[in-house]
Amino acid sequence: MQHFAEKYKNELVQNVIPFWEKHSVDKECGGFFTCLERDGKVFDTDKFMWLQGRQIWTMSMLYDKLEARESWKEMAVHGADFILKNGRDAQGDWYFSLDRKGNPLVQPYNIFSDCFATMGLASLYKITGNDEYGQVAHDTFNRIIARQDNPKGKYSKAFPGTRNLKGFSLPMILSNLSLELEHIVGSQLVDKLIDEVIHEVMEVFYQPETGLIMESVHLDGSFSDTFEGRLVNPGHIIEAMWFMMDLADRRQDKVLMSKCVDIAIRALEFGWDDKYEGILYFKDILNRPPQQLEWDQKLWWVHLESLVCMAKGYAYTGDERCKDWFEKLDAYSFKHFADPEFGEWYGYLNRQGDPLLTLKGGKWKGCFHVPRALFKVYETLK
Amino acid sequence: MQHFAEKYKNELVQNVIPFWEKHSVDKECGGFFTCLERDGKVFDTDKFMWLQGRQIWTMSMLYDKLEARESWKEMAVHGADFILKNGRDAQGDWYFSLDRKGNPLVQPYNIFSDCFATMGLASLYKITGNDEYGQVAHDTFNRIIARQDNPKGKYSKAFPGTRNLKGFSLPMILSNLSLELEHIVGSQLVDKLIDEVIHEVMEVFYQPETGLIMESVHLDGSFSDTFEGRLVNPGHIIEAMWFMMDLADRRQDKVLMSKCVDIAIRALEFGWDDKYEGILYFKDILNRPPQQLEWDQKLWWVHLESLVCMAKGYAYTGDERCKDWFEKLDAYSFKHFADPEFGEWYGYLNRQGDPLLTLKGGKWKGCFHVPRALFKVYETLK
Repeated sequence: MQHFAEKYKNELVQNVIPFWEKHSVDKECGGFFTCLERDGKVFDTDKFMWLQGRQIWTMSMLYDKLEARESWKEMAVHGADFILKNGRDAQGDWYFSLDRKGNPLVQPYNIFSDCFATMGLASLYKITGNDEYGQVAHDTFNRIIARQDNPKGKYSKAFPGTRNLKGFSLPMILSNLSLELEHIVGSQLVDKLIDEVIHEVMEVFYQPETGLIMESVHLDGSFSDTFEGRLVNPGHIIEAMWFMMDLADRRQDKVLMSKCVDIAIRALEFGWDDKYEGILYFKDILNRPPQQLEWDQKLWWVHLESLVCMAKGYAYTGDERCKDWFEKLDAYSFKHFADPEFGEWYGYLNRQGDPLLTLKGGKWKGCFHVPRALFKVYETLK
Repeated sequence: MQHFAEKYKNELVQNVIPFWEKHSVDKECGGFFTCLERDGKVFDTDKFMWLQGRQIWTMSMLYDKLEARESWKEMAVHGADFILKNGRDAQGDWYFSLDRKGNPLVQPYNIFSDCFATMGLASLYKITGNDEYGQVAHDTFNRIIARQDNPKGKYSKAFPGTRNLKGFSLPMILSNLSLELEHIVGSQLVDKLIDEVIHEVMEVFYQPETGLIMESVHLDGSFSDTFEGRLVNPGHIIEAMWFMMDLADRRQDKVLMSKCVDIAIRALEFGWDDKYEGILYFKDILNRPPQQLEWDQKLWWVHLESLVCMAKGYAYTGDERCKDWFEKLDAYSFKHFADPEFGEWYGYLNRQGDPLLTLKGGKWKGCFHVPRALFKVYETLK
């Protein structure tokens, strides 16, 4: 597997990061453009907070772990200046989006904006030591913890009490976020959060009967036979499993590690499209029609997170199934997602594996999953 | 064109209505199941207010205009009993969805629930004379008019003031709804509303440079170069054009009628998929990547509303382009959407024209567009 390391590093450094360096920096108004066509041309100038925070994180992380290039740090600082100036409302909650100049467009209805803002700022604090980054990251993290049981607040459309479900996204993100904040919030809190998160992911959301993790469950962890409760997002499960593998490694917990590998393989088998290859975006656990019209599409992040997961699974355990899946996913991904001509990767393929949209970045795709995964695979296999 | 009339009536009476009669009535808990698999099997029991109101309307309308079958009226009353008992909050606003038993699930964040509730009850009032239906329809209509400038209320996620856009959906629905309520609210109010709606649709949302109607515009009607502002929904334009044709006919306004035909033809040409046939769901007016991942899919209602529009366009004006388009759409729709084996029509096809989901009803598809369109085409061409 070692020979893959150079391939992934080259793809990262020669094909992906230059794309964002060249096309995404808004020198006039600050922050990053993320709506970029195939060739990098900006097709929309709105600034989405998820992607601003994520790009700050990516550039800081690469500076920290791959190579201390000043230009990478400067890009992260450029993004942080913009979000610190424009990103928060009076309560310190992060807007979902801003216009090009930084005026708020969409209210802080979505707590993941906060998650990626704190992740980016914490990472930049690590490489700069600038206290403002650390302080805002810390404050934001505390707000996330305080809001975690009612993350949508007044924007929640659910009628209270009729059907109380809880979602898998937040515990999953917290499992990764707490590690990213450890240098700020301290190991004691992180260990406590990790305990809770491992319990939630591996015992509450995991369903032993199917071997899968559900997107939404009743508060007691039982299955809900509803659109939300039947939903399986294979990419989400697989991404969570590499977060969990890192926690299992931290604790030297071989039972947990082995369970993570089994669940990830099960999710890959469940999500794999035997007809056209690639991993389906959504499936209904009872094989009923899902409400997501995009269910049969092939998304970049699903395949990239699966590559990371299989690389880690193989490195941690030597399980040959991980190696086989890695090779299969590598072949599919470089054939269908990578774009050697203009750089970066396509985000959205139709079921047949052709680009559904030719964009390289948009409202939900920025400088994050592609570079993170390429780096993680390189780091794991080198 | 007359020979199509019988075909559409037969499809309605023999293939579509029996499907809903057989599978959708929840005799135990009231109201209608709408989540029905290809063969009619119920795959989810939640009750969506749009579709409850729409089914009440469809059955009442068919009783009124096609044939006074007691069982059709009974079905409408069965639906009305359920929504009157369970459908509203303390302010009289209509929930978006209920569980099978009628407990509220999703709050009244969406004013279209109210539109279809009042439309259904007004129609049932017409065939029963029951004052309660008329009164609630009237009260709801007044609430819609009062809420029309801020339909989402506290659930709006837009930050006030940064980018004030207005959407095409509500004026479009009001153009149809006011006619449906005329026997309750009176012709004077309806004429006044029609004046406003024709102005909004044909002058504010219509863009002379492109010959198309946009989904969202600035408050002054100018183009907004944003994801929302660039969005074209061809099916929406075409459906609106037959609403407008009926208004043009009511006023004997030949200039308006001719403009409606031209816009509808333009939208069909713009939305038609030259590669695989059928009408695309969404396009970006500047040919940039749309945010809707389902943009290339072929939806039942788009094609059915286009059939109605072309039938009416031909009947009102004799324009041969309408006849040609009707025949082309008829061939595509009966080949790809209709299901002679189990009844009703598929709702969602992929770009290639194969079923993306095999459901006959779901969260957004109920007993409405298929029977309404089949009836309207029959009524127009007979």
